[in-house]
Amino acid sequence: MPPATRAHAPAGRPRDPEVDRRIIDAAVQLYGEAGWAGFSLEAVARRAGVGKASIYLRWSGKEQLLADALAARVANVADSDTGTLRGDLITLTRQLLRVYLGDARRAAHRIAVEAPGIPEVARRWTELRESQVLAARAMVRRGIRRGEIPENTSVTLLLDTLCGGAVMHIMTTPDGLVGQLVRDADRYAEELVDFLLHAVREANR
Amino acid sequence: MPPATRAHAPAGRPRDPEVDRRIIDAAVQLYGEAGWAGFSLEAVARRAGVGKASIYLRWSGKEQLLADALAARVANVADSDTGTLRGDLITLTRQLLRVYLGDARRAAHRIAVEAPGIPEVARRWTELRESQVLAARAMVRRGIRRGEIPENTSVTLLLDTLCGGAVMHIMTTPDGLVGQLVRDADRYAEELVDFLLHAVREANR
Repeated sequence: MPPATRAHAPAGRPRDPEVDRRIIDAAVQLYGEAGWAGFSLEAVARRAGVGKASIYLRWSGKEQLLADALAARVANVADSDTGTLRGDLITLTRQLLRVYLGDARRAAHRIAVEAPGIPEVARRWTELRESQVLAARAMVRRGIRRGEIPENTSVTLLLDTLCGGAVMHIMTTPDGLVGQLVRDADRYAEELVDFLLHAVREANR
Repeated sequence: MPPATRAHAPAGRPRDPEVDRRIIDAAVQLYGEAGWAGFSLEAVARRAGVGKASIYLRWSGKEQLLADALAARVANVADSDTGTLRGDLITLTRQLLRVYLGDARRAAHRIAVEAPGIPEVARRWTELRESQVLAARAMVRRGIRRGEIPENTSVTLLLDTLCGGAVMHIMTTPDGLVGQLVRDADRYAEELVDFLLHAVREANR
């Protein structure tokens, strides 16, 4: 991402990371509730309990703020190398479940709908999604190199069903059962990964 | 659904199904583009090329119209009994792919985000989703009864990964490749189903 998308505090006045965090949290919540139509720097400042100047010191506009907020709270699936494919995929699934079960849930669904209508945010969002797909594909490729799964494994099928399965599981759970889902998330991630690793191995027998 | 949600034409003046279709199409498209905030009977009538009276003859309000449009164009995954589990699941996947690759794509994503804010539509939408989940579960249960898959198959894992995988596949495809996706949809449905049937069988060896 170009460094110019984020303004810097003047020398000698270090930025307060707690203020950054409050602004980002407020941006994600407001966007999730009100969408792009209701997203303004004034409303984010009010919700974060900071002055508008604090936001302008950091971001040049609402497009940049929303893109940074999505990067920090929604598109935060990162590569992680636990040493085994199973471990990597469980970590990936837990990261996804945390996003879709957490405060960023509505923002995550909303940006998928609204991005085409907000070109400046859509460009960053597309980059963020692509880097997440690359991180996930890198995990699977390491598993193939280590001989954990067959060489002709369909990386696309495995990742579609893993990531899609986790998101669908959350979306089809009635609201009254979401609390239980949060408690069971770590175990569900293991069951999902094991189920799909069976598919990969059996498909290539 | 209570019959009162849909008005009936006066006796002796049969409704024109072509007008119904145009209104439903216009409603799905407008909702997908503009969301609930931009959804009005005036705008639907204009887009459908019909008079507002034609809509009021049929629907008592915009909530009822949107709910019927979602039932007709988005929540149209129906039970289908092809005689084999593989056949049933391929049919289900193709139905899903058609929704998410077709004109109702944006409406399908949008209602998942906006339903909590439109209580009268949310109630119908929840019923529609539940009846689709029941239809899908009935397919898998028939497969178990016929001995095609083991009795202790996790119906939830199989359907999460099947439906989620199909939707994720579409959502992670760059716009430039959607045309190819449409052409490959039938083959993808078969690959996805076969992959997951391997998982189910291997998980229970």
